[in-house]
Amino acid sequence: MVKVGVAGYGVIGQRLADGVALQKDMQLVGIADLAPTLSIRALKERGMPYDLYLVEGANKAAFDAAGIPVKGSFADLIGKVDIMLDSSPGGVGAKNKERYEQAGIRAIFQGGEKNSVADVFFHGYANYEKGLGAKYLKLTSCNTTGLIRSVDCLDRMYGVDRVAITIIRRVADPGDYHRGLTNALQMDKAPSHQALDLMTIMPHVEATGILVHTPVTHGHIITVVAHGKQGKISKDMALAAFKTHDRIRVVRIEDGFLGNASFFRYARDLGNPRGDMYEIGLWEDGIVESGDQIMYAINIPQESVTIPETMDAIRAALSMQQDSASGTAATNKYLRLGTWK
Amino acid sequence: MVKVGVAGYGVIGQRLADGVALQKDMQLVGIADLAPTLSIRALKERGMPYDLYLVEGANKAAFDAAGIPVKGSFADLIGKVDIMLDSSPGGVGAKNKERYEQAGIRAIFQGGEKNSVADVFFHGYANYEKGLGAKYLKLTSCNTTGLIRSVDCLDRMYGVDRVAITIIRRVADPGDYHRGLTNALQMDKAPSHQALDLMTIMPHVEATGILVHTPVTHGHIITVVAHGKQGKISKDMALAAFKTHDRIRVVRIEDGFLGNASFFRYARDLGNPRGDMYEIGLWEDGIVESGDQIMYAINIPQESVTIPETMDAIRAALSMQQDSASGTAATNKYLRLGTWK
Amino acid sequence: MVKVGVAGYGVIGQRLADGVALQKDMQLVGIADLAPTLSIRALKERGMPYDLYLVEGANKAAFDAAGIPVKGSFADLIGKVDIMLDSSPGGVGAKNKERYEQAGIRAIFQGGEKNSVADVFFHGYANYEKGLGAKYLKLTSCNTTGLIRSVDCLDRMYGVDRVAITIIRRVADPGDYHRGLTNALQMDKAPSHQALDLMTIMPHVEATGILVHTPVTHGHIITVVAHGKQGKISKDMALAAFKTHDRIRVVRIEDGFLGNASFFRYARDLGNPRGDMYEIGLWEDGIVESGDQIMYAINIPQESVTIPETMDAIRAALSMQQDSASGTAATNKYLRLGTWK
Amino acid sequence: MVKVGVAGYGVIGQRLADGVALQKDMQLVGIADLAPTLSIRALKERGMPYDLYLVEGANKAAFDAAGIPVKGSFADLIGKVDIMLDSSPGGVGAKNKERYEQAGIRAIFQGGEKNSVADVFFHGYANYEKGLGAKYLKLTSCNTTGLIRSVDCLDRMYGVDRVAITIIRRVADPGDYHRGLTNALQMDKAPSHQALDLMTIMPHVEATGILVHTPVTHGHIITVVAHGKQGKISKDMALAAFKTHDRIRVVRIEDGFLGNASFFRYARDLGNPRGDMYEIGLWEDGIVESGDQIMYAINIPQESVTIPETMDAIRAALSMQQDSASGTAATNKYLRLGTWK
Repeated sequence: MVKVGVAGYGVIGQRLADGVALQKDMQLVGIADLAPTLSIRALKERGMPYDLYLVEGANKAAFDAAGIPVKGSFADLIGKVDIMLDSSPGGVGAKNKERYEQAGIRAIFQGGEKNSVADVFFHGYANYEKGLGAKYLKLTSCNTTGLIRSVDCLDRMYGVDRVAITIIRRVADPGDYHRGLTNALQMDKAPSHQALDLMTIMPHVEATGILVHTPVTHGHIITVVAHGKQGKISKDMALAAFKTHDRIRVVRIEDGFLGNASFFRYARDLGNPRGDMYEIGLWEDGIVESGDQIMYAINIPQESVTIPETMDAIRAALSMQQDSASGTAATNKYLRLGTWK
Repeated sequence: MVKVGVAGYGVIGQRLADGVALQKDMQLVGIADLAPTLSIRALKERGMPYDLYLVEGANKAAFDAAGIPVKGSFADLIGKVDIMLDSSPGGVGAKNKERYEQAGIRAIFQGGEKNSVADVFFHGYANYEKGLGAKYLKLTSCNTTGLIRSVDCLDRMYGVDRVAITIIRRVADPGDYHRGLTNALQMDKAPSHQALDLMTIMPHVEATGILVHTPVTHGHIITVVAHGKQGKISKDMALAAFKTHDRIRVVRIEDGFLGNASFFRYARDLGNPRGDMYEIGLWEDGIVESGDQIMYAINIPQESVTIPETMDAIRAALSMQQDSASGTAATNKYLRLGTWK
Repeated sequence: MVKVGVAGYGVIGQRLADGVALQKDMQLVGIADLAPTLSIRALKERGMPYDLYLVEGANKAAFDAAGIPVKGSFADLIGKVDIMLDSSPGGVGAKNKERYEQAGIRAIFQGGEKNSVADVFFHGYANYEKGLGAKYLKLTSCNTTGLIRSVDCLDRMYGVDRVAITIIRRVADPGDYHRGLTNALQMDKAPSHQALDLMTIMPHVEATGILVHTPVTHGHIITVVAHGKQGKISKDMALAAFKTHDRIRVVRIEDGFLGNASFFRYARDLGNPRGDMYEIGLWEDGIVESGDQIMYAINIPQESVTIPETMDAIRAALSMQQDSASGTAATNKYLRLGTWK
Repeated sequence: MVKVGVAGYGVIGQRLADGVALQKDMQLVGIADLAPTLSIRALKERGMPYDLYLVEGANKAAFDAAGIPVKGSFADLIGKVDIMLDSSPGGVGAKNKERYEQAGIRAIFQGGEKNSVADVFFHGYANYEKGLGAKYLKLTSCNTTGLIRSVDCLDRMYGVDRVAITIIRRVADPGDYHRGLTNALQMDKAPSHQALDLMTIMPHVEATGILVHTPVTHGHIITVVAHGKQGKISKDMALAAFKTHDRIRVVRIEDGFLGNASFFRYARDLGNPRGDMYEIGLWEDGIVESGDQIMYAINIPQESVTIPETMDAIRAALSMQQDSASGTAATNKYLRLGTWK
């Protein structure tokens, strides 16, 4: 049984912990954080299903005042695990890495850290094998993770050598007050980092793109214009490929999936914890052909989309499965991905 | 075991069904709807925990095409229950009432119907006794339900004879596309209907107020200026009263409850289904005194706040408990309200 | 001196009237409307710079009550003009057309009407010559007008044979309360009508695209992936072309044009009436190359962008100038377009 | 002719400059800023109607690169004026004050500075006389300025001794990207500073209140519950008072003033530069009575509302008029306030 810890119990950290807890071949040893945030307070109200460890600088008295039990220090947690999932705020992970190196444990960092923190920039489908046995991996960011799922899906079936993407980015998560945008669409300097990141993971694809921030909290939408390596990928071909994928939900506007908020609504109605969805959405009635290119739109549930690929990363780093097919299949089984098809 | 049906499986209907399913002294017979909406599709993906009945005009073929099993007709459902919770779109409930009358069953309508549809305009705390044995009850709307909880709480302890409210209304629910507002605050003609409704339920209180619609989806915020009947209600007095209430969560900005989105975030982190919260929020650091008046702010989780009072209404209508104290206590026990204190 | 009337004094109608008033070779005879809207009330407060005529069904007493002077009936206005600019709500224009036909006058309809209302679907740059002497013209919608400006600009210089567009659409105008969207991105069925409309105007270009509605009021952003007919259009080539255009403002993020709201802010700071801008914006640091394609992003000021092309349409319909170059040049001179370069 | 300079040409500074330029008994010597912002670039495109001076730390080369002519240094500007209007970013004004003291000139600071920067915390109607001859004045913030207008209006006529306010605050200005809020209502710790500030200016009134931030850009809405000192102020009495005021626009929802965005729309339609409005709005159909109190709602155009009172402040500081009535009357005349009645 692989032993896993989580550093940083924020939007991503909570979901990583939940994800690990669902993997029957992994054990979640505990989580570490700095302050009695709302998420930590909710953990307490739930009866502490996960043990809490405090990182350096934490004010123990504040936890005591809120009646939140503490199991030990960050060092204690590190001493008990085979691998840490580090979802600390950007930059802190790089500092934590020194601790992991001293303790001789592996670690997986999230998209907020610089690529240099890791030996391998990882995606469960697109380059699982590169992660095999690696000590330090970094996951792609939420947009890139979802984007690569769809591009890799077409690439595997038909070959893809070029994509041009437009990212319509949600600017904040539900519950954020510090990074909103009000009545404005904000441009990023092009090309977007997601296009560049895609090329790092899939070097045989030329990618570029433009990103626009929008004042919503429920999921990025990306349009992709993709060029087939061995000829045109038709709408039927693309649809057939997407429908086979366990982490892609093909939906239709006419069935009620009107936009990004529909996925959130649907996941809440499903009873998914936190209204989360691991799959990206893909609109069947949003696929069109453009000359020898295929154009489509996907929905990225930004809070939870990277969880499956992070589970894959644990599997690769600890050589639990030897290739992408078996690694992702194990993750999918425990997260019940694809069962809805 | 009391037998309950739900008509209309939308935002409110789903939560009514879930609420009934949690009451150990009630049996949810099934739900009725018209079309294979996202919520019905989610029900199917969940394995049909609730039986589905189709109302007149439903296109059975569309349900078949989506693979959604149907148990029977609306008439079938009506024939099996003691009471219907009618959360059909506004106006439909009045039509359905004829069916209920013919079948000789009781019914509880939601805020969207006209008051005339019901014998009693009902609130679990403020006028439970009026609902005892009544055939047709109508619940107060979400804002009024939460508002009355707080005013009744003070009134019970200290007496209240006047309130002036400002409702900062969320304009749409998560997942709505048809009734949004973009970059605007919209005024309603004063006085707001919520103030008038409060006076219907609590005739000894003079109430008025102004309502402003705002472009958000996560919970109304209401400020209340209340006048004590028997003298000034101080901040300490108000706080002491609010803290005793099982359906009011007293929180602090400094603990991280920065606004309406924090309650939604917290409920999601708690693992509550759909991220719902039954309690209203009340900010300890938002209470101030104004002459002989007390002023405070509450947060109304609009999707779920009326569920407990609707359970109370079933109890009253079917005389399951004989007074407000025991009726609301039973509801609170099954919904686990107040356990977090 | 060409005599012009405007039917419908809403968001577009007001700007059409202002636009005509600036053309020294045209005379604005008056405007027609139905109700004492805020815009009509503002006209009165400004001292009635434009004469007001009432369409059928108008409640004259309401205008009298508000002290708004009325010059005559819609028939009176029609009798005095050579051409009507019809910016009535969608569908009303088609009815009005019968009146124009009876009176033997020309008319120009806006994007809300069906194409069948007109003999020619018109764009000042892309098909001016088709409009020469035409009796009934219809303007392209705001998105299509701006989009065609940019595609035609490249096409004229280098040839373009294919475009794939992503429209990030603002969902409402400032001051709208009836068609907002709150915290959601809404997908349209693909391909978007703007892509189809582009092909109607520029039949030698294959176009497709996806449209996503966003909850903002200040300008659509469109990304365009364009394929050069005679080989790759490089970033430098594209930039050189765009910079020559009098109705395209090439800007940079680093100069402060961070998004759609910056154009509105800038136009307000310029002192432009209503904070309007006739030019589309185009980000220099948003242009990237994708294989043999060029990708760029434009900003469409939806309230005012169609005004210049409507002035062009008057020129074409009344044969004031004989070709696109001289027609658009006359419009540009009177609207002072390109003077900022 | 009084000589005036403006430091900081941002949202407020631009409007101060425009306001001074309209006062026929004042001369705008110039404005000072640090960087070639969009507003400065717009000034250049307009042909530099105001001379530009550079504050310390400005990068002259950046202005040269943008072709923006510079008249001189901040010291040069200070040397030419009788009084400076300082609308620098919060905190900078306090530093600038040393320069003003050295030069022996007067200055007026905006709401972002601490009260201690000034000898007098000023409002043109409520305490003009305190500002007479004062060297350093600070204006009330936008919300407080508008709020006091309305409370002072009632106080003057009928006496007011207590107010409880709810501020529904717009969170950002049009064109802002750095301080937005997305899909959230954010609470401030109560009481709001605006209530405290009101008591500083009007010490005979007891004030408290709650402030909630909302994700919109067009005008704060404040509800006020006011208590008459000499008995109840009825709706008719309040309305009569408000209608006399030159800086209050009494409007009706039924005429189309549906919310805060309507005022912006109306001001744009009026042709007001930048779509600005100096008056606060007050809804006739938003006034209600609550026991012996009157409740009403006002709209605060946050970008421009403080301009008239700042003009008043110049008049007081330089003893141009000796009392509130004549000081505000002079300002109103030049800004054409009240002419619309």
